[in-house]
Amino acid sequence: MSKVTPRTLSGFMELLPEKQMKMERMLEALRRSYSLYGFAPLDTPVIESAQVLLAKGGGETEKQIYRFQKGDSDLALRFDLTVPLAKYVAAHYGELCFPFRRYQIGKVYRGERAQRGRFREFYQADIDIIGDGKLDIINEAEIPAIIYNTFKSLGVSRFKIKVNNRKLLNGFYAMNGMAERAGDIMRTVDKLDKIGEEKVKQLLIDEVKLLPCKAENILDFMAIKGSNAYVLERLKMYTGVDETFDKGYEELLAVTEHLAAFGVPEENFAVDLTIARGLDYYTGTVYETELLDHPEIGSVCSGGRYDDLAGYYTDKPLPGVGISIGLTRLFYVLDEQGLLSDEPVTAPCDALVIPMTEDMGSAAAAATALRDGGVRTQLYGEQKKFKAKMSYADKIKVPFAVLIGEDEIKEGCLSVKDMQTGQQQKLSPDKATEYIRQSVDGRNSAPLIIE
Amino acid sequence: MSKVTPRTLSGFMELLPEKQMKMERMLEALRRSYSLYGFAPLDTPVIESAQVLLAKGGGETEKQIYRFQKGDSDLALRFDLTVPLAKYVAAHYGELCFPFRRYQIGKVYRGERAQRGRFREFYQADIDIIGDGKLDIINEAEIPAIIYNTFKSLGVSRFKIKVNNRKLLNGFYAMNGMAERAGDIMRTVDKLDKIGEEKVKQLLIDEVKLLPCKAENILDFMAIKGSNAYVLERLKMYTGVDETFDKGYEELLAVTEHLAAFGVPEENFAVDLTIARGLDYYTGTVYETELLDHPEIGSVCSGGRYDDLAGYYTDKPLPGVGISIGLTRLFYVLDEQGLLSDEPVTAPCDALVIPMTEDMGSAAAAATALRDGGVRTQLYGEQKKFKAKMSYADKIKVPFAVLIGEDEIKEGCLSVKDMQTGQQQKLSPDKATEYIRQSVDGRNSAPLIIE
Repeated sequence: MSKVTPRTLSGFMELLPEKQMKMERMLEALRRSYSLYGFAPLDTPVIESAQVLLAKGGGETEKQIYRFQKGDSDLALRFDLTVPLAKYVAAHYGELCFPFRRYQIGKVYRGERAQRGRFREFYQADIDIIGDGKLDIINEAEIPAIIYNTFKSLGVSRFKIKVNNRKLLNGFYAMNGMAERAGDIMRTVDKLDKIGEEKVKQLLIDEVKLLPCKAENILDFMAIKGSNAYVLERLKMYTGVDETFDKGYEELLAVTEHLAAFGVPEENFAVDLTIARGLDYYTGTVYETELLDHPEIGSVCSGGRYDDLAGYYTDKPLPGVGISIGLTRLFYVLDEQGLLSDEPVTAPCDALVIPMTEDMGSAAAAATALRDGGVRTQLYGEQKKFKAKMSYADKIKVPFAVLIGEDEIKEGCLSVKDMQTGQQQKLSPDKATEYIRQSVDGRNSAPLIIE
Repeated sequence: MSKVTPRTLSGFMELLPEKQMKMERMLEALRRSYSLYGFAPLDTPVIESAQVLLAKGGGETEKQIYRFQKGDSDLALRFDLTVPLAKYVAAHYGELCFPFRRYQIGKVYRGERAQRGRFREFYQADIDIIGDGKLDIINEAEIPAIIYNTFKSLGVSRFKIKVNNRKLLNGFYAMNGMAERAGDIMRTVDKLDKIGEEKVKQLLIDEVKLLPCKAENILDFMAIKGSNAYVLERLKMYTGVDETFDKGYEELLAVTEHLAAFGVPEENFAVDLTIARGLDYYTGTVYETELLDHPEIGSVCSGGRYDDLAGYYTDKPLPGVGISIGLTRLFYVLDEQGLLSDEPVTAPCDALVIPMTEDMGSAAAAATALRDGGVRTQLYGEQKKFKAKMSYADKIKVPFAVLIGEDEIKEGCLSVKDMQTGQQQKLSPDKATEYIRQSVDGRNSAPLIIE
């Protein structure tokens, strides 16, 4: 029979078992963290009608979309989780309770040019809170707490949630008579981190055509940095001129006001006036999250407040606030940099039961006892030499081998070998279960990410 | 702005939050059960090269496959999880440890004719054990234990795992000189449940062109029913004539031998000679699982032993054994019949914190305390009347409302209202956390499926 070469498409992540286990742990941590904040899990189809999916117009992404015919249907694969959410809320409006809080962790598709570290199929992990007509600012204040808890649960503590407000920026540009060029200015200012103040100033003068004094005004404003209290105090001096600015200031004040009550330490949070997040969609608070030791990764969790989730489907005003983690890319970069911990168990099982005699019944009974006690257990049933069995245990990196020989069968006990230390002890099935579980629980409570 | 009607394609399941939560609980139960038996989670792309995906030839499914061009690439969506597994094992052969045990729970795509209860996108939940050249029979003996534990963990106890062996059937047909018509016979015998013995006999005579005495032989064989011991005893009388039959008999014996050691009660298991499971793929033990009170659903978990997982990709012989649960269809049918329990919490949170004053800080602090204690908590932050807030709590079916008024703020406690009983009590944050968690854990340990 002629063979087809088995291959996986480029731009599609497919992990070996050990790494997949690390990914699963991250997925599980996100599910748990999002659930803790009262978000409902949501699952929408990967395929949607192209007409529905592209109702808004795809913009930059449109070329990248996987779109195809099946029979008479014009279909497309989802390219984010926001458009499916908008569809879902508009379609099920009458059946949902508002504010509607949902999380969705799922794969999305963009046929980008294949490139190292760029994925055509990747996980997004989103939460959104959607209001019916109105949505209180307290929801925007809660988002940093969710980001904080999520990254803590991944084992990271050295990160900063950066917050800004679009009304503040728009108001600032308006009061400086630059409202019409706000878009160009924001795009230019966005380069501050990369090219520095001097070059940004030059671009603002040469390309955005601002007067030098205006460019300086902007850079002075963007340079306001320090404690939240200090930044807010400085911002206060700009109030009383532009209504939009004042509204943004008040919102920023409200968002920072309850940080402590929401459990977010000051050191993990900063008002950062350089954050803008794209242009049209966001209308209030915007968020970015930086890993302090790895600024080169860029923002690992971003989002913001928007006023109109589903205008292309419904007349109902549906304001909301949401954040998104690009999980596949985050996982890829962390792995590349060797930052995914090996401490949590990556083997498919916690215990490998190895029969030392022909008596498979006793080995099966041992495996059953361990499983009944919640130990993830594999029974090694192949007819191989002892050495080959132990080598298998080594290769899959199982924490414990459980040997069942004649003595163990006679005595009704298990010989439990710690594969890391080599230490071996005979234990009753109950004791073995407890011992293995405790050890494994200890390892699994270690941070997933190395700092 | 002209609106696009937000709609979901027919044949694609999209659930409201309450039902989605029930689905999530089933997914979680499957993940936990499969993990307990030492299977590694696997995640492969939804999109594959059409050439790779269709290497085997799609057969009946080929017409249903979602296949499309993107740039120069001929792509297709996976239509099951077995072909991607074959690809994965063949492609990563050198990097895997054998036996390789993996589970995969993921969506697959088949463009079937739209029909009530038929899905074009549906979850399959598969486990497979792949050997390198050989795979011991003990793996086939372990599968019923995995099925047993999985359905128990879903809350079902009235189910039967039916097991047969293809070698036994092939041997039986061979010793009766009907080897060449085995396929037609199996397809006809498969109708026993639906049309009864008499009509099957007539079909065997009229259409398969068997002599009446041969048809009777078959029906006598298929009618062997009773305890495992009895069936095996009766089968023993057929041994000694055909080698393949004898091999099948031995395998069946080995599979039933360790049932007790694997923790499978006799009442949940039956050797059933009428089970055949398709034609070409399976070569040994085959499995089906029936819900005793709902035989009309058909088999809810099926699979078997195969000798050649990936022959179209590699010369390496890769035998295996696996089972699959068609989760979306199972969920749909259980829901249709009202068999999904409301006892486990379906709300997006366990506690809804309701501020009774303007002081959002105290309410936020209460929510943070509950979350730190592991209670899934939502803070209701909208400016509404008390009645509207309580009506929201009712609608999302949250188990507990936590009221934070002036007294509670002064006393540093929370008023916890059980939304089912209406009972309300003032508790310290610690006590409230413990009380809510205990109650919710109790509800969540209830079976997911009603019997």
